[in-house]
Amino acid sequence: MPGNSFGQAFRFTTWGESHGPAIGCVIEGVPPLIPLKEGDIQPWLDKRKPGQSRYTTQRREPDQVEILSGVFEGRTTGTPISLVIRNQDQRSKDYGDIADKFRPGHADFTYFRKYGIRDYRGGGRSSARETAMRVAAGGVARQVLGHILGAQVVAIRGALVEMGGRPIERNRWNWDEVERNPFFAPDPETAALWAQDLDTARKAGSSLGAIVEVVAEGVPAGLGDPVYDKLDADLAKAMMSINAVKGVEIGAGFQAARLSGEENADEMRASGNRVTFSSNNAGGVLGGISSGQDIVVRFAVKPTSSILTPRSTVDRFNRDTEIVTRGRHDPCVGIRAVPVGEAMMAIVLADHLLRHRGQVGSLPE
Amino acid sequence: MPGNSFGQAFRFTTWGESHGPAIGCVIEGVPPLIPLKEGDIQPWLDKRKPGQSRYTTQRREPDQVEILSGVFEGRTTGTPISLVIRNQDQRSKDYGDIADKFRPGHADFTYFRKYGIRDYRGGGRSSARETAMRVAAGGVARQVLGHILGAQVVAIRGALVEMGGRPIERNRWNWDEVERNPFFAPDPETAALWAQDLDTARKAGSSLGAIVEVVAEGVPAGLGDPVYDKLDADLAKAMMSINAVKGVEIGAGFQAARLSGEENADEMRASGNRVTFSSNNAGGVLGGISSGQDIVVRFAVKPTSSILTPRSTVDRFNRDTEIVTRGRHDPCVGIRAVPVGEAMMAIVLADHLLRHRGQVGSLPE
Amino acid sequence: MPGNSFGQAFRFTTWGESHGPAIGCVIEGVPPLIPLKEGDIQPWLDKRKPGQSRYTTQRREPDQVEILSGVFEGRTTGTPISLVIRNQDQRSKDYGDIADKFRPGHADFTYFRKYGIRDYRGGGRSSARETAMRVAAGGVARQVLGHILGAQVVAIRGALVEMGGRPIERNRWNWDEVERNPFFAPDPETAALWAQDLDTARKAGSSLGAIVEVVAEGVPAGLGDPVYDKLDADLAKAMMSINAVKGVEIGAGFQAARLSGEENADEMRASGNRVTFSSNNAGGVLGGISSGQDIVVRFAVKPTSSILTPRSTVDRFNRDTEIVTRGRHDPCVGIRAVPVGEAMMAIVLADHLLRHRGQVGSLPE
Amino acid sequence: MPGNSFGQAFRFTTWGESHGPAIGCVIEGVPPLIPLKEGDIQPWLDKRKPGQSRYTTQRREPDQVEILSGVFEGRTTGTPISLVIRNQDQRSKDYGDIADKFRPGHADFTYFRKYGIRDYRGGGRSSARETAMRVAAGGVARQVLGHILGAQVVAIRGALVEMGGRPIERNRWNWDEVERNPFFAPDPETAALWAQDLDTARKAGSSLGAIVEVVAEGVPAGLGDPVYDKLDADLAKAMMSINAVKGVEIGAGFQAARLSGEENADEMRASGNRVTFSSNNAGGVLGGISSGQDIVVRFAVKPTSSILTPRSTVDRFNRDTEIVTRGRHDPCVGIRAVPVGEAMMAIVLADHLLRHRGQVGSLPE
Repeated sequence: MPGNSFGQAFRFTTWGESHGPAIGCVIEGVPPLIPLKEGDIQPWLDKRKPGQSRYTTQRREPDQVEILSGVFEGRTTGTPISLVIRNQDQRSKDYGDIADKFRPGHADFTYFRKYGIRDYRGGGRSSARETAMRVAAGGVARQVLGHILGAQVVAIRGALVEMGGRPIERNRWNWDEVERNPFFAPDPETAALWAQDLDTARKAGSSLGAIVEVVAEGVPAGLGDPVYDKLDADLAKAMMSINAVKGVEIGAGFQAARLSGEENADEMRASGNRVTFSSNNAGGVLGGISSGQDIVVRFAVKPTSSILTPRSTVDRFNRDTEIVTRGRHDPCVGIRAVPVGEAMMAIVLADHLLRHRGQVGSLPE
Repeated sequence: MPGNSFGQAFRFTTWGESHGPAIGCVIEGVPPLIPLKEGDIQPWLDKRKPGQSRYTTQRREPDQVEILSGVFEGRTTGTPISLVIRNQDQRSKDYGDIADKFRPGHADFTYFRKYGIRDYRGGGRSSARETAMRVAAGGVARQVLGHILGAQVVAIRGALVEMGGRPIERNRWNWDEVERNPFFAPDPETAALWAQDLDTARKAGSSLGAIVEVVAEGVPAGLGDPVYDKLDADLAKAMMSINAVKGVEIGAGFQAARLSGEENADEMRASGNRVTFSSNNAGGVLGGISSGQDIVVRFAVKPTSSILTPRSTVDRFNRDTEIVTRGRHDPCVGIRAVPVGEAMMAIVLADHLLRHRGQVGSLPE
Repeated sequence: MPGNSFGQAFRFTTWGESHGPAIGCVIEGVPPLIPLKEGDIQPWLDKRKPGQSRYTTQRREPDQVEILSGVFEGRTTGTPISLVIRNQDQRSKDYGDIADKFRPGHADFTYFRKYGIRDYRGGGRSSARETAMRVAAGGVARQVLGHILGAQVVAIRGALVEMGGRPIERNRWNWDEVERNPFFAPDPETAALWAQDLDTARKAGSSLGAIVEVVAEGVPAGLGDPVYDKLDADLAKAMMSINAVKGVEIGAGFQAARLSGEENADEMRASGNRVTFSSNNAGGVLGGISSGQDIVVRFAVKPTSSILTPRSTVDRFNRDTEIVTRGRHDPCVGIRAVPVGEAMMAIVLADHLLRHRGQVGSLPE
Repeated sequence: MPGNSFGQAFRFTTWGESHGPAIGCVIEGVPPLIPLKEGDIQPWLDKRKPGQSRYTTQRREPDQVEILSGVFEGRTTGTPISLVIRNQDQRSKDYGDIADKFRPGHADFTYFRKYGIRDYRGGGRSSARETAMRVAAGGVARQVLGHILGAQVVAIRGALVEMGGRPIERNRWNWDEVERNPFFAPDPETAALWAQDLDTARKAGSSLGAIVEVVAEGVPAGLGDPVYDKLDADLAKAMMSINAVKGVEIGAGFQAARLSGEENADEMRASGNRVTFSSNNAGGVLGGISSGQDIVVRFAVKPTSSILTPRSTVDRFNRDTEIVTRGRHDPCVGIRAVPVGEAMMAIVLADHLLRHRGQVGSLPE
């Protein structure tokens, strides 16, 4: 019942604090005989790793993942897979200010109210450092999808589609561009503008929000478990559980509320023994079950709350005070949320693939 | 693991199809000694009940709830509470068309692909009729909140804040108005315009989408279980699992992504032994834990997919065809989603209140 | 988290009190397209039904089960199956004595201490009447096993192997006899002695305990989920959760503790492409996973606590008093525990079959 | 859903193989502000540690536990507690024989049948080495019980009550003796005989079984969650999930089946504002809920399957062969099962204490 796990059939549980000795996770339910080595996981971690451009925190963490169990002679055994990353660059000597003061927009205040104690070092458990283990688990989930679906490749890709209120031009969308700029932008022209926007914000001691879009292609129809574990309900939970996320939408999302019934309902046509759709307002999910179309999810990431501008707040003795959050922080946490969103998508899909197989047996074509 | 339940400590499981003999739910985890009778649940069902205005389906269902277990001499006993509603007005003689054809925008196609069988009568399990049991369970959740929190009243109220792309004027917001119009609109002037919009849509055989806002006041700080069962993550799942919902946001939501760090992070001030905030962009949740501010959730409801305009689709033999969805349908399902959203809010809060009490013991003040 | 459910992939949740309007259960996770009608469930309920001989309670309950959801045109749809049995012969006018007094050996005292309230009518939720729904769910589990395993028939059969300290003669074991006497005894000669023993006990206002053995033949190797959901661990929980059960053992059970290592470890031999074992001390489970041998479970049922002999006890005001439990009771509850034990075996196997299929995919041969 | 976790509110998940780099567990749901350091856990591990007498395996493992998360400045924070033990003395160079052959009585065959792969080094995941993490989690559970119950001390103690078919003399029971002999025997005279029995068995290349009894004193009335998570049902699962356990009983256990109703039902008397019982055949559990009496559980441990006597078996190519299990093994695994049984008792009680507090709020007196 405690909330450190995600998934049912493919299930992972994370542990660890930002400035503790290590962070880690235990992944359960992975089918046996799947090839798995650290090298299958590390590239995804590298993508999320801090310190790769001036637009992310300068904390230096190699984020080297180690597999401690569940793999034998290069293949999974069906037993729990324990992954661990040792924390390196904690630089935790001086926390003076945040030890007693609650940073606005942070979890400092609520953790203290809930538990009566908090590990204030770097945000402790509430730090976005926890998301490294999501990315690691996502790497394993991708192996599971690949192994089970075989030739039917599921491609899960994320991109930043808006930053600081400036959206990309969708007609310039090019997946190949995503890896070529520090923003995971599918539109290089907008990326260039974001670079200016973010430099300006950073220099002003401010920060920017962003919107991330994650798309899964090649997902078979039939995944999702009505009515409370609908595929989109699980995706909403998955994304909303990522630090700093304040909104999630599927397909046309909030815009769907502005369409008429005729505009919104995607029409269907037979195409050989498959079905094609005239549009994808549904975002690939109907009645909580995948339709075979691309699964499209977007989520909004608030601007980093750790800023240099002094802000009013209270301390743990409930006295008024001010705080300036120095330290190494991402001026836009939305950027590094891209690989995290991809990972959560992979995890939700792997989970529902195993769940479907358990109940229904044959996989949907 | 199957997906018919919601909640952990306060947990309910629903069953039943739109045109089966009955629908029902089992609610577990309810503390003992709480006064409970059908009359505590019925008013919420009446609010959601179909056929109350020309803006909702004309299906006539009295939706009389019956308590079958878990209550003794007017009080809960701590054992499971079974609730049932007999279906009355099924009118299921003729399903000719939808028995074989998949309605665009509906779950017909995906249920069939997943299970190889579907109860097509009125949508079967995928019908929004299921939400009646959410409302019933929500009524019980409200009793739990009231019983445990006592004098600290949690007020959970929902309203329609946008329909067919037309938003309310927020400066005219008046909760008292919500019960006075058929749209749960807090702004009567906008409600009058919606009446025209919806009449137009209905006569054109079309339908409209809407946005619902649910606010919980008086929620103590400290509820929510990091990191995967964050209060907002559970709310996102709760709302996204409601039929036709395509997006969920908390507090400033997607708009937060357009604010700067200074604008977004709500500042804090001491106020006696409490804390007040300069704004509520967070929507009452920080780090997945309630802050004591109002919990504010919005969700987008797509326009009803059952429309009179003929649409292209396929049948279960994967042949191209057309469909017109006759029958009794809500021209805007978003309206009746208001009490459903309130119910899901009550359920999430009751669940986390019990979970908090289990782990931490004393309730947050 | 509340404790009214059993199983993970095949999961059922029961509700209802002995003298409430009805009892019922919701079964989730059942694969689609399995033929299911009331007639598939009723025979198992008839086997457990009270009032069939003078050796069971004279309460008259037809125990007619009704399917309320999850089945369409005679086949399961993959959605939750709601089963209900209306209580008929409650005879609940007069509970005077047990309303205030706690019956020794019953749950009266502990329910009251836990919840501060109890439905004392016929034992309320703690009544063995709850086990009717286990038997109903077991009937559905048998359909699942049959449907998935096809030609590989799993035969689940139970028998009473000891009553009042008198064991059967194992060399006289004959499964055909089980249905021919009111004790589910596989040895008619011992059954004749039990008849005398039980008549004596009944006339003396006393009661007898018993030991039940349940055997599942034809179970494929590979079921069970190490390390906490071992097949035998789940069976132990399943059986110990049945009313009045005080002990559970697998295979040689407690006797295994008296064997030497050589005697105990069942040797293996190849037999075509299968494996045979020289003995079955393991009871068909090695390391928590089925080995392909018969699964053999025994459980001990204490003598009925409702007896006519006056017993010392306390009332709810914690005053010393005496109680005589009149009413209609089984002089040996172990008898009717036989079909309940069979049902729990079927449920555990169906659950692990679906779990295995989810994680590993192909079924073990 | 995978089976590597135990408990609901107090929940732990173990990982690791006998000869992998480490074993570990993640404990969730621990209340905040509880003092916790390695030194609170280590003594229990030391009690279970191998190589402490000639009656246990000579594998040398210091079993030094390390806390990696969830504790800050000496107190729990409410976040997951990660514990790890590095494996030291793996001696895994030569597994020749067991790599291909299935040891009778071991999980080798069934793991291979289930997963198609197994980590054969020292039994991999099926090794009793896993139980070290149960003991570690049990140490944390004891801290939880102590912290919540305060002055009402719960004393959890285990003892070996039978070995090789030779039971202790119960009238000589002395808890103080348990720590004074290598068998956790409460009766030193029987311990002396066991020493001879076990030397004989060991020299003959054989092994002995045993019966363990675990008693919890001071447990408040009211713990346990009817009907499927009865306290005794959870204890049965907890104990049966321990390696080599083949039977579990509560209170009078199997012997209860041989008592009459009058003999078995423990009578009650008022004693101040408490209740006393004339006997404890129930083993402290009525209707699945603790009664305030001592909780008494016994479980049977089969003789070690790893013996020097050659045994017939098959290899993974399903060919007949013979095997002699050399290596370092406990001649009676029941001995070291004593601290494991204590740990599982502590875990079940801590879990139900938190569950009770969640649903009912006030703790039972």
